[in-house]
Amino acid sequence: MKNLLLGVAAIALSVSALAQDAAPSPNEIVAAAPQSDWVRIPADDLLVMDLAPDAEGNPRRVVIQLMPPPFSQGWVHNIKLLARSGWFDNISVNRVQDNYVVQWGDPNYDNPEAEGETKKLPEGLKVMGESEYVAPLDAVHPASEAVNGDDPEQFENLLASIRALADAPEIRDPYAQSFEFYKGWPIAGDFDNNWPVHCYGMVGVGRNYSPDTGSGAELYTVIGHAPRQLDRNIALVGRIIEGMEHLSSLPRGKGELGFYAEFEKDKRTPIRQVRIASDLHEIPQPAFEYLSTESESFARYAEARANRRDAFFIHPAGGADICNIPVPVRRVPSE
Amino acid sequence: MKNLLLGVAAIALSVSALAQDAAPSPNEIVAAAPQSDWVRIPADDLLVMDLAPDAEGNPRRVVIQLMPPPFSQGWVHNIKLLARSGWFDNISVNRVQDNYVVQWGDPNYDNPEAEGETKKLPEGLKVMGESEYVAPLDAVHPASEAVNGDDPEQFENLLASIRALADAPEIRDPYAQSFEFYKGWPIAGDFDNNWPVHCYGMVGVGRNYSPDTGSGAELYTVIGHAPRQLDRNIALVGRIIEGMEHLSSLPRGKGELGFYAEFEKDKRTPIRQVRIASDLHEIPQPAFEYLSTESESFARYAEARANRRDAFFIHPAGGADICNIPVPVRRVPSE
Repeated sequence: MKNLLLGVAAIALSVSALAQDAAPSPNEIVAAAPQSDWVRIPADDLLVMDLAPDAEGNPRRVVIQLMPPPFSQGWVHNIKLLARSGWFDNISVNRVQDNYVVQWGDPNYDNPEAEGETKKLPEGLKVMGESEYVAPLDAVHPASEAVNGDDPEQFENLLASIRALADAPEIRDPYAQSFEFYKGWPIAGDFDNNWPVHCYGMVGVGRNYSPDTGSGAELYTVIGHAPRQLDRNIALVGRIIEGMEHLSSLPRGKGELGFYAEFEKDKRTPIRQVRIASDLHEIPQPAFEYLSTESESFARYAEARANRRDAFFIHPAGGADICNIPVPVRRVPSE
Repeated sequence: MKNLLLGVAAIALSVSALAQDAAPSPNEIVAAAPQSDWVRIPADDLLVMDLAPDAEGNPRRVVIQLMPPPFSQGWVHNIKLLARSGWFDNISVNRVQDNYVVQWGDPNYDNPEAEGETKKLPEGLKVMGESEYVAPLDAVHPASEAVNGDDPEQFENLLASIRALADAPEIRDPYAQSFEFYKGWPIAGDFDNNWPVHCYGMVGVGRNYSPDTGSGAELYTVIGHAPRQLDRNIALVGRIIEGMEHLSSLPRGKGELGFYAEFEKDKRTPIRQVRIASDLHEIPQPAFEYLSTESESFARYAEARANRRDAFFIHPAGGADICNIPVPVRRVPSE
């Protein structure tokens, strides 16, 4: 439990008022972070999605970072399988709903007006349960990391400390008892579980009505204010780390829920190919790093996001919601 | 002070768990609201902005609702003056920064690479101070509405009640001590002031470094997650109530801060004309209503936004941030 406590405490401390004169902006703090504060993202966790070129012939590549354990690993397994089997190739972006989501998949799936056949899914896809929308606390913070995992009283004291911190005004979250950053990801929690949260650019798994949880063949990303009501109601599997603008700037659909209606189906953007970066026959391969959310640089960055003191600002907010502290990610040369 | 207390209390009550079976969605609650719960927006508060038609020749109209007193009225005055003098005509959208803002104004203003002349501003523009970013509490909730404005003890008790409500987990806001809806607008507050908040689609006044507060000739709207760090640092003057997609789907700029760089200046979208709706020589005139934020329908809608129990959802969130409770607005026939 130690890490959970530290994780929450880091944010609470970070947003406390520090007396400073001229202060660097969040971006300046990130730019000054030492190389040792950056963590390479495994190429096996990068999903590279090539849309058809735009009207002017410019390429449109979108790169998605898939989520690490303990979150959503069944769906992540499926998505890698779908990518490696070529199933995602030649599907399309079928839904663009303003201030909500862009969604892509098989345009004929669940579409009563479709003229074509539904694509057959590959063998080996896992069927996931709704319990997998969350991970138990000890999967994020193993009991072995607790000061003494065998001491119930100590454990209760730690929980009480966490609760006190979660009530601190600087880290108030109307959607959860606590939030923290875990291995580069924003997650929320209560006293039993942790779960990833629906921030701008996060990627999730479209599904039908419960108990269906989706296979991973239908994906969406958030293009508006964080729809946190979806947390724990749908699986999050990753986030867009490059090329977001190719999705967020697409024309909005005029059909129900922002789907492109039949009369405008030529607006669906074709997806030419989706691959795992480590499988790409390209040199250089796409490569990225994120700013370690356990680093001092990140703590300073989060503090500066919550208390802007750079030249433009006259009134630091004194707090920030978790989706307003996006984890810095940058492209780097491939190794 | 009575209304402030009621305003905050309404949200606190509204998000408490109600035992219900099948529950309507927020949209269904809005659709079922009686006509008496809707409030006509004065035509004098509607700013109608016509962009150049899109590549297919389709018209692109954006309608902005300007903010009522006591907020930002100096800038609102200026914007009406700029619209009525024709100053906004033939300016352009010059900045589109993903997950942040779209900004429009004179493309030659403050642009060292501009070839044209800066447009001369009309006479009569007010110069506003930074103190105008907020309104004192008693401007929103006049002392005459307090149970007894002359009784300091009663006043203190009311403040204590407000503080207790603001600490309720359902209405936690990391950016303010309280939030409420006031005459159809989301506002935040502390124990001295209220101020409008930067939600998706809100419209603000671009400015240079402090103490400049902007005239209203340079405007922006939010196209991503609520940048609440801007609250109290910049003037909010309205919100987009129709045609948001014409701005949010524009191509992102490749220059600094999402401005269109010189090499791509043909991407700037021309703004043909901006008028106050009541001045338009059109029949029918554009006309809109908002769902009264003092109505029971709105309280039910807000509660349902915070606790989704309609068919898709398996786990109601138990809370919502103020920007995730957008005030319903609808187009109606002109009178």
